[in-house]
Amino acid sequence: MSTADLYAAYKTKMQKIADVKYAAAVLQWDQETYLPPKGNDFRGRQLATLTEVAHEQFTTQAMGALLNELNNKEGLSDSEKRNVELSLYDYNRNKKVPGDFVRKMSEAITTSYHAWVKARNDNSFTGFQQPLEKIIELKKQEADMLGYQDHPYNALMNDYDKGLTVATVDGIFSDLKPQLLTLLASIKNKPQVDNSFLHQHFDKDVQWKFGIQLLQQIGFDFEAGRQDMSVHPFTTSFNNQDVRVTTRVDENDFGNMTWSCMHEGGHALYEQGLPAEQYGLPLGEYCSLSVHESQSRLWENSVGRGLPFWLHNFTGLKTLFADQFKNISVDAFYKGINKVEPSLIRTEADELTYHFHVMIRYEIEKMLIDGSISTKDIPTYWNEHYKQYLGVSVPDDKRGCLQDIHWSHGSFGYFATYSLGSILAAQLYAAIEKENASVNKEGAEGNTSTILNWLTEHIHQYGRQYTSQELCTKITDEPMNIKYFIDYVTKKYQHIYNF
Amino acid sequence: MSTADLYAAYKTKMQKIADVKYAAAVLQWDQETYLPPKGNDFRGRQLATLTEVAHEQFTTQAMGALLNELNNKEGLSDSEKRNVELSLYDYNRNKKVPGDFVRKMSEAITTSYHAWVKARNDNSFTGFQQPLEKIIELKKQEADMLGYQDHPYNALMNDYDKGLTVATVDGIFSDLKPQLLTLLASIKNKPQVDNSFLHQHFDKDVQWKFGIQLLQQIGFDFEAGRQDMSVHPFTTSFNNQDVRVTTRVDENDFGNMTWSCMHEGGHALYEQGLPAEQYGLPLGEYCSLSVHESQSRLWENSVGRGLPFWLHNFTGLKTLFADQFKNISVDAFYKGINKVEPSLIRTEADELTYHFHVMIRYEIEKMLIDGSISTKDIPTYWNEHYKQYLGVSVPDDKRGCLQDIHWSHGSFGYFATYSLGSILAAQLYAAIEKENASVNKEGAEGNTSTILNWLTEHIHQYGRQYTSQELCTKITDEPMNIKYFIDYVTKKYQHIYNF
Repeated sequence: MSTADLYAAYKTKMQKIADVKYAAAVLQWDQETYLPPKGNDFRGRQLATLTEVAHEQFTTQAMGALLNELNNKEGLSDSEKRNVELSLYDYNRNKKVPGDFVRKMSEAITTSYHAWVKARNDNSFTGFQQPLEKIIELKKQEADMLGYQDHPYNALMNDYDKGLTVATVDGIFSDLKPQLLTLLASIKNKPQVDNSFLHQHFDKDVQWKFGIQLLQQIGFDFEAGRQDMSVHPFTTSFNNQDVRVTTRVDENDFGNMTWSCMHEGGHALYEQGLPAEQYGLPLGEYCSLSVHESQSRLWENSVGRGLPFWLHNFTGLKTLFADQFKNISVDAFYKGINKVEPSLIRTEADELTYHFHVMIRYEIEKMLIDGSISTKDIPTYWNEHYKQYLGVSVPDDKRGCLQDIHWSHGSFGYFATYSLGSILAAQLYAAIEKENASVNKEGAEGNTSTILNWLTEHIHQYGRQYTSQELCTKITDEPMNIKYFIDYVTKKYQHIYNF
Repeated sequence: MSTADLYAAYKTKMQKIADVKYAAAVLQWDQETYLPPKGNDFRGRQLATLTEVAHEQFTTQAMGALLNELNNKEGLSDSEKRNVELSLYDYNRNKKVPGDFVRKMSEAITTSYHAWVKARNDNSFTGFQQPLEKIIELKKQEADMLGYQDHPYNALMNDYDKGLTVATVDGIFSDLKPQLLTLLASIKNKPQVDNSFLHQHFDKDVQWKFGIQLLQQIGFDFEAGRQDMSVHPFTTSFNNQDVRVTTRVDENDFGNMTWSCMHEGGHALYEQGLPAEQYGLPLGEYCSLSVHESQSRLWENSVGRGLPFWLHNFTGLKTLFADQFKNISVDAFYKGINKVEPSLIRTEADELTYHFHVMIRYEIEKMLIDGSISTKDIPTYWNEHYKQYLGVSVPDDKRGCLQDIHWSHGSFGYFATYSLGSILAAQLYAAIEKENASVNKEGAEGNTSTILNWLTEHIHQYGRQYTSQELCTKITDEPMNIKYFIDYVTKKYQHIYNF
């Protein structure tokens, strides 16, 4: 077969596997949005089968032979070559995990997910401990199968951000922690800002329409996507022409929907910006979860909690909720939505204290995987560190170590990317401002197209071409570092808290 | 391997194939309800891949060997034996159609579907003719591959109703047609009933809630299903714990949603009544499309257009639409919703003239498949026969031969089951009345549980155990015949039109 024919065969196979994977994503989306309650068990098995089919089809000997042959061929374009390299990398990694292990994991996840839901209802970690123990055991096995240097947790983080290591994350967090604690202390010494106006009654439908309006404004294409309601907001994509975000609406908390729309919208703009012609191939996929999170945090915070954005949008918002915002100036609104206050729930945390939530979870995961703590120690470790870092007392497990779904889903190695995303977002936004002097002025006129175009040009269009670190250095001429984030939060809170 | 182990292996394989097929059904449901417009092309290919995967997995040599081995084994229970027999039958049938033919058909369908949508917008059959020609060509090939006796159309009808033949349907229709024409003539001679009150403004949301209420009342389990909005109402099922109906709401036509809810609800009750423990196996599947349609028509017409049903529901309806029904008695309402009037659109036709729509289409399909007419003759044949049977002039193709989606989907052999369903519904309802003297009295009290229990006991629980004809004879002691239907419509319209 000619190189062109081999490449075409590779592409066909990959795209069919993608069809199966994205079908699974449709079933998952439906599970979170519209599935009737009794349909859950069958849906679980349908998802497990699709995952198994995709894994089987990708790990056949024929696929391995094809990839190895192509990888040694001359005559591929640069992007073709990169696709083949990355697919071969994925193939070798996938081959290390046998199909029956994948199914075993999938079953353990179903069990632990149900146990987590029940444990949350019971408000007690106890019922979740055993199933979680099983997941940890399997995750340790998976790390061993995949192989790693230095720390088993590296093997797991690698799935979410290729090349990310404990050494890197430990380094970043040990720089970040004292600086955030200092900032937090400065803020505590100052008069606190008022955000009580966010906690009034806000009509559900009006909020919903406002969220849609914001998504449209930042460039989300509703012809190639939609927004629905779900218990936990998320973004999913079945191809760049069908990207879906979900949100929830709290009638007594204006912030809940608004910034989750901006956050998920940021994820969605990334997915809509991936190249359609690379469907099913690595260059059609997102770079890493850190980069994904940089997109959501950039739109949520750098844009969506910025003064320019509200200089434009607050007037419109006031017409929707005239009573609620009657005596509120745009400056007071801006300050209120940026109030810093240590709290219990990660997803509701401000931009500053957010990272303590992430650090605590990251430490726990790392130690669970290297065996330095066991699952039964989680609540104690959790509660002690919330007291230590954030000064808050955790009243119960529901508002403590049971709050997030990730562990029950077997997502270990994921958490650090939440902080890295914020750090990278600040670094990227600084680069955007440097190259586009009028970007904030445009923002104040309701025009964020310069930002979206910049992100598409520098990030979205590349898919998985580069790792996070390579991409960051390519764009900003520096490796990922906390300087820009610290600058950003320092300036923001100095202005707001006047220190 | 022991018989039990072999059967377990068979069950596992079948259930995994079912997972893939039902995943495709989820994607189709989503396509009709929530898919953003630009997502259509990728969705098409994802569906084609799932169909291909399911077909491939079912037609492997290993599957054939397993089925043949099991089929010769002693020690299976009756239901296990029947499952294996039916799966072997399906296997042999599927083997006759090669995978690349399946894909070719799937692609031709995508093309013809788009051409049909465009032709409808252009209101001209011309643009649809070529793609339809291609479908017919493939359907003829498929009939040849599958094999048949007497008529190639038999091979196609067999897919929707095993054992159904042109001879049977021709026989039924040639009995039915003159009797319906006589009835129609009697009705035409009488003063016509008024149904103008159905064509006022009816608030969308209130209609929607009323539809949900009707579904709940007839026993649709909303914990194991849901209702959504779509352009064309339909029912789909991903297992008996997740059955979904869709409807549309016309603010200027009360009938549009109400009886489509009842119709789809009838389909859905059948799906919810199939045995969960037979998931993925023939005994967990519906018997045939004729039987499926008997369920929908029974609930739509025998129940939903019956006087008892409205003796109970009309009071509630009047509180929802007080102005619209102010001067309407339940008797006038009952007459109005049963008005007979030859019309252009099948889905809006009354119970009597409905069958002429079906007969015309059936004749056209049969002749297209045996080559006695060609696609370019369709509009002329169509319009002439609408004039001849129904006395209506077809003003354009949109309200003529382009009205239904089926041909663009390659669904040939399906249409007769629409009439057979009505005929069987009447036969079944007569049996229910015979065995349950108080069923209509209960209905007038809002209680239709006797009907649902009877259908579950006599039909739903059996899945594909019997063919339509076997099932009909088993339940009613007679083969399917038009006597009960003719009785039913004669009595109904004698009462309403007073002849």
